[in-house]
Amino acid sequence: MPEHGGNLDVAVARFGGSAQDWIDLSTGINRQAYPVGDLPMTCWTALPSKSALNALHIAAQKAYRTEAPILATHGAQAAIQLLPQLCSAGNVRILGPTYGEYAAVFSAAGLQVTETSDLDALAGADLAVVVNPNNPDGRRHHPDRLLALLPRVGRLVVDESFADAVPDLSLASQAGRPGLLIIRSFGKFFGLAGLRLGFVIGAEADIVKLAAMAGPWPVSGAAIAIGARALSDRAWANAASARLSRDSLRLDAQVAPLGWSLVGGTPLFRLYETGDARTAQEKLARGKIWSRIFEGRAGWLRLGLPGEETEWARLAAALRAG
Amino acid sequence: MPEHGGNLDVAVARFGGSAQDWIDLSTGINRQAYPVGDLPMTCWTALPSKSALNALHIAAQKAYRTEAPILATHGAQAAIQLLPQLCSAGNVRILGPTYGEYAAVFSAAGLQVTETSDLDALAGADLAVVVNPNNPDGRRHHPDRLLALLPRVGRLVVDESFADAVPDLSLASQAGRPGLLIIRSFGKFFGLAGLRLGFVIGAEADIVKLAAMAGPWPVSGAAIAIGARALSDRAWANAASARLSRDSLRLDAQVAPLGWSLVGGTPLFRLYETGDARTAQEKLARGKIWSRIFEGRAGWLRLGLPGEETEWARLAAALRAG
Repeated sequence: MPEHGGNLDVAVARFGGSAQDWIDLSTGINRQAYPVGDLPMTCWTALPSKSALNALHIAAQKAYRTEAPILATHGAQAAIQLLPQLCSAGNVRILGPTYGEYAAVFSAAGLQVTETSDLDALAGADLAVVVNPNNPDGRRHHPDRLLALLPRVGRLVVDESFADAVPDLSLASQAGRPGLLIIRSFGKFFGLAGLRLGFVIGAEADIVKLAAMAGPWPVSGAAIAIGARALSDRAWANAASARLSRDSLRLDAQVAPLGWSLVGGTPLFRLYETGDARTAQEKLARGKIWSRIFEGRAGWLRLGLPGEETEWARLAAALRAG
Repeated sequence: MPEHGGNLDVAVARFGGSAQDWIDLSTGINRQAYPVGDLPMTCWTALPSKSALNALHIAAQKAYRTEAPILATHGAQAAIQLLPQLCSAGNVRILGPTYGEYAAVFSAAGLQVTETSDLDALAGADLAVVVNPNNPDGRRHHPDRLLALLPRVGRLVVDESFADAVPDLSLASQAGRPGLLIIRSFGKFFGLAGLRLGFVIGAEADIVKLAAMAGPWPVSGAAIAIGARALSDRAWANAASARLSRDSLRLDAQVAPLGWSLVGGTPLFRLYETGDARTAQEKLARGKIWSRIFEGRAGWLRLGLPGEETEWARLAAALRAG
């Protein structure tokens, strides 16, 4: 399986401490999470009902500004894992470098996978994958360019896991067109990655097939209760978007004195060219701040945003230290 | 998709009230649930770590008395959904009548599925499925008989979703043998079906493949935290087993005056021959108690066990009513 951020086991094994000593900036998960609040006991005890799942789907459609068929999944990851069963033959082209699970999942299913950095080179694929905005480099594609690509591929998967704070980039309003599948992550923007909630939006025929594959209880009772509440809370989302946009620039400014330059990013994470990412990661790790580096990209270091002021202060101290 | 118990939407649509007015006895889910307790905030906010998942796996191995490789899944259902990818060609034989998802999932994957009521007729299958004890009729198979079947099939899936309270029936201690896969449900015995947690236990090669299919975050942070705690609490499990065994006999005694006879059952549910299940279901529904009936079995009514005394009293009143 590909490596991922968010696994503090590695940080603890290499640099000591216990997980709670660390500030995990190795992911793009919002560290000022949506408040979980009280949960009804039935969200634990009862099988999730169809009506509750339906209410979650409606809240997600509103939040993502779409009327197209939608399916909640056990994280965006579970939606990715289902894709090879939807498109079980042919060639897959992935716009890269990007989130490693796409290549891994399609390769494991025996499909031929090619990675290209050229959007136009996706044309002709039986299934093409674009992450927009992209992880880890923040590369963005105007919705019109992706719509122009759609008729030139068998299926176009647009992963919008980091689109919540840049909603104008989203193609969700166009979902329902044959061949277009949009994947959304709940946990990143709302800071609740442990809940495991994601969505796939697409044409009726595809969503019906995916729903059958996901089975009668695709997400937990807690995911339904918290997801429906959070996705309906536009005031929280607007405030979070504004804060994340401000804070991402604050982070850029904070690392600038070290000579790190911004490769790209989203309001949830920043990718810096540091010259020597391994050394930069170790410097931060001495302050128990965990970051993400990338095989084959010696200078790249990805940082999520600190949450509370104490975390910003610890990051500043770690950056200042010798 | 097959019909299932536990969907109060149907009860509400047909007989009125709202979900919280009903006592749901249409499933085999323990209505005296394991106390969820406090959860660390990180179980919501962080991606589940490999070390936490590993701790859950160890707790499950101890609880299920096995040292074989194990994988936590998003409910036993998610384990079932993965099976066709493990065994993608050949003929599937299912010992029935039983839980409808097996036939549905394998048929949807394009496999040839046969149901038989004769255990010996499973021999020769590429994949055979036995639910032990069986749902809905409680039919039981001695572990030795299943072990004798193992070399005569390609793979033997033994679903032990209702085995927690009858542990001597479990084949988990024999897991690890090539071709044997055991499926366990957490939510039924612990009364936490909304959590979505199950396990599959088997030979190293199979579990490695299933883990790759399930992806890096197969279960939620809450499932890991609550699951590890509950599976380690043998005092609770022993008390629950004893109570369920007593209460299942109490239920038999309570319905006996109506002339309903026990077809079979487990400590978590009972299947009665009522003569006319539709009428029996309606009688209970007038007291807002929901039960499960079965297409093609005009007399069968399945009842889970009431939880608190108030629920027993409401059941008694509904049974007495005209």
